[in-house]
Amino acid sequence: MAHPITDFYAVIPAGGIGSRLWPLSRADAPKFLHDLTGSGQTLLRDTWDRLAPLSGEDRIAVVTGRAHRAAVERELPDIADKNVILESEPRESAAAIGLAAAILVRREPDVIIGSFAADHVIHGTRTFEFAVQQAVDVARAGYICTIGIQPSEASVGFGYIKKGSELDVDGAPEAALVERFVEKPDFETAQTYFADRSYLWNAGMFIARADVLLAEIEANNPALHAGLIELAAAWDDRDARGPAVDRIWPTLEKIAIDYVVAEPAAEKGRLAVIPGHFDWDDVGDFASLAKLNSRGRGELAILGGNARVLADASSGIVVSQTSRVISVIGVQDIVVVDTEDALLVTTSAHAQRVKGVVDALKLTGRGDVL
Amino acid sequence: MAHPITDFYAVIPAGGIGSRLWPLSRADAPKFLHDLTGSGQTLLRDTWDRLAPLSGEDRIAVVTGRAHRAAVERELPDIADKNVILESEPRESAAAIGLAAAILVRREPDVIIGSFAADHVIHGTRTFEFAVQQAVDVARAGYICTIGIQPSEASVGFGYIKKGSELDVDGAPEAALVERFVEKPDFETAQTYFADRSYLWNAGMFIARADVLLAEIEANNPALHAGLIELAAAWDDRDARGPAVDRIWPTLEKIAIDYVVAEPAAEKGRLAVIPGHFDWDDVGDFASLAKLNSRGRGELAILGGNARVLADASSGIVVSQTSRVISVIGVQDIVVVDTEDALLVTTSAHAQRVKGVVDALKLTGRGDVL
Repeated sequence: MAHPITDFYAVIPAGGIGSRLWPLSRADAPKFLHDLTGSGQTLLRDTWDRLAPLSGEDRIAVVTGRAHRAAVERELPDIADKNVILESEPRESAAAIGLAAAILVRREPDVIIGSFAADHVIHGTRTFEFAVQQAVDVARAGYICTIGIQPSEASVGFGYIKKGSELDVDGAPEAALVERFVEKPDFETAQTYFADRSYLWNAGMFIARADVLLAEIEANNPALHAGLIELAAAWDDRDARGPAVDRIWPTLEKIAIDYVVAEPAAEKGRLAVIPGHFDWDDVGDFASLAKLNSRGRGELAILGGNARVLADASSGIVVSQTSRVISVIGVQDIVVVDTEDALLVTTSAHAQRVKGVVDALKLTGRGDVL
Repeated sequence: MAHPITDFYAVIPAGGIGSRLWPLSRADAPKFLHDLTGSGQTLLRDTWDRLAPLSGEDRIAVVTGRAHRAAVERELPDIADKNVILESEPRESAAAIGLAAAILVRREPDVIIGSFAADHVIHGTRTFEFAVQQAVDVARAGYICTIGIQPSEASVGFGYIKKGSELDVDGAPEAALVERFVEKPDFETAQTYFADRSYLWNAGMFIARADVLLAEIEANNPALHAGLIELAAAWDDRDARGPAVDRIWPTLEKIAIDYVVAEPAAEKGRLAVIPGHFDWDDVGDFASLAKLNSRGRGELAILGGNARVLADASSGIVVSQTSRVISVIGVQDIVVVDTEDALLVTTSAHAQRVKGVVDALKLTGRGDVL
C-alpha cells in the first residue's frame, strides 16, 4: 500500500456535543476536544494522527462549528486554512459531509473522500489502514463504501450493517455489498447477529468519490444538493463565501447522511462494505467510557491528568477535571464526573439517562453548565 | 420551673472534629461549626440557644481549642470573655469538663454545672428542659446525674445506660440510679434493650455540683485532679494563666469523662439518670446525617444553603458546600459530599469507613484537605 494514497482526502466532521457525556462534554468543550482514553491527547487529535499517514497532513479537512475554530486549530496546528470548513450552525451530517464533498470536488474532480467522526476511539493502526485502503479501491470502482466493525460482543448500543454478496474489486479482498441497515437491536437479536458473522457495527464511516457521493445526494434530496453546490461555488471566493453561508446554510435540511446517502445507495446495490477488524467505540455514554478505560472487572477506572482519587472497595469510573481529592467508598459500577461547575454521580446502568439531565437543566434555566 | 435556674451553669465542650463526617467536618471547620439540620445555624449555636433559657446567656461556658476561638465568638457574639475556656491542645472530655468545673467552683462554690456536647442534635425543647430541670434537682441532692435518651429504635450506634432502682428526689419524678453502662451492642442485643424500657442511650450529658464532680475525679484520678485545681487557681490571674496552661495542660491525662467520673460513680451508687424523651442524635456519620435530614423513604435529602441538585430516581443525601450543579441519577442510599477541595461518594452502609479515608489521606501526604 502506497502512503499517502494520492487521490484520497480525509474529512473529519467535528460537530456533535455528546450530551450523554455531560458534564464532561458540553457546548464549549464537546467530546472530540477531550482525552477519553488517557492517551494524553484529544480524540480529534487521535483522529488526525490516524488519518495523516493515509491522506497526508495537507489533505485532511475538518468540518466544525465557528465556535470551535480556535480549539480545532490549537489541536491541529498543521491544518491548512483551506481545510477548515466552518459551519455557521450545526446542520447534521448530510450537510456537513456533503459540503466538504462539494468543495473538494471543485478543487479536484476525481477526489475520493473518506469521512471519519472526530470523536470515536480506534485501536489497531494497521488493520484500520488496511480497511481504508480497501475502501478507497472500492470507491475508485464507483461504489460508495462504508467500513463496518466486526463485532467483538453482542452489543445493543450500535446499529448494524448486514453484509450481502461479495464484490470482486482489485485490492479489496473483503469487499461486499451492503444488504441492509438494522437499527439498534434488542439483546436476543444482538446475540444472533453476533453469532452470524455477516452483521457488522455501523460506525458511520463513508468512503466515496466526491462526485458519486454528491450524485447520490442529488438523487435523494435535490434541494439539499442544490444548496451545497451553490455554497461550494462561492466557497473559495473570500468575498462571496460569507454572504453565501449566511443565506444558504440555515436553509439546508438537518438530516443524517445515513438517510440521504447510505440507505438509498444500499437499496440500489451501490453501497459496499469493508469489515473492520480493529477495536472501535463511539464512546456514546459513560458506561462505554468506563468499559473503555476499565482496568479489570471490579476495578475503578480513573480518567484525568491531575486526578487525586482515593478508592476503597469501589468499581466503575471517576473522571476528574479538577484538582480536588475524590474519595469513593464501597460503591459499585459508579460513575463520578467531577468538573469545576458541575458534578455527576450515577451508575453505568443509568448512563443513558444523562441526556435527560441535560434536557432538564435547559428547561430549568441552568444552561450555564451545559 | 423557674427560668433561668439560678445556681446552674451550662458547659459546652466544643472539641471533636468529627472525622467520620469528612470532608464536611474537618480540622478548621469541625462538626459543631456546621448546620447539619438545615436550621440555618450551626450546631454550636443551636446548643447555645437550647441552654440559654435554662442557665441565662451569661452563664454558658464553652471549652474549645485556641484555633476555634474566633469562630466560636462569631457564632456566639453574646458570650462573655470569662466564659470562653481555651485549650492549648485537645485533651479529651475529662480534662475539658474538669477544667470548667474547677474554674467555676472557685467563682461560685455551690454551682451546679451541666455539660452538653456542642455537636449533638436535639428536637423537643420542653421535654429537654424538663429533663435538665430534674437533673439539676438530683444534682442538688448530691448525685452526679446524666440524661439518658429513651430509645426510639434498636440502635447499634450508641452505648446504653441500664437504669436501676428509682430515686426519691423532690422535683425529679423520673430519677433513677444508674445500674451500669453498656458498650455499643450487636443488633440482637439492641433489640432486647429496645424492648426493655430500662435501657437508655448514653448521650454524654452530665449534670452535677462542680465540687461533687471534682471529688469524683480526685477519687479516681488524683493526678488529673491536682493538675486541674492548679490550673484553675491560676486561671483568673491574667499573668499566671498562660504559663500555667503551657506547663500543666499538656501533662493532663487524655481520658473520657465516662471512665474518670461516670462509670466509677455508677459503681458506687452515686450516679443518677433522668430519661430524656426528646429526639436526640449525635450525628456520628453520614448514615446518621442522611436519616436526620430524610424527606421520606426513597427520597434524596439535600443539605446546603446554595445547593443546586438535580436528582432522578435516587435516595440518600447530598451535602453541598459549593455552588456547583450536582446531578444524581439512579443511585440508592448514596452519600455525596461536595466541598471546594474534596469530594466524597459513598453509601449509608459504608458511612463508618469514612474515618479510614481520613487516616489514609494523612498517611499519603494529602492532609491539606483534612
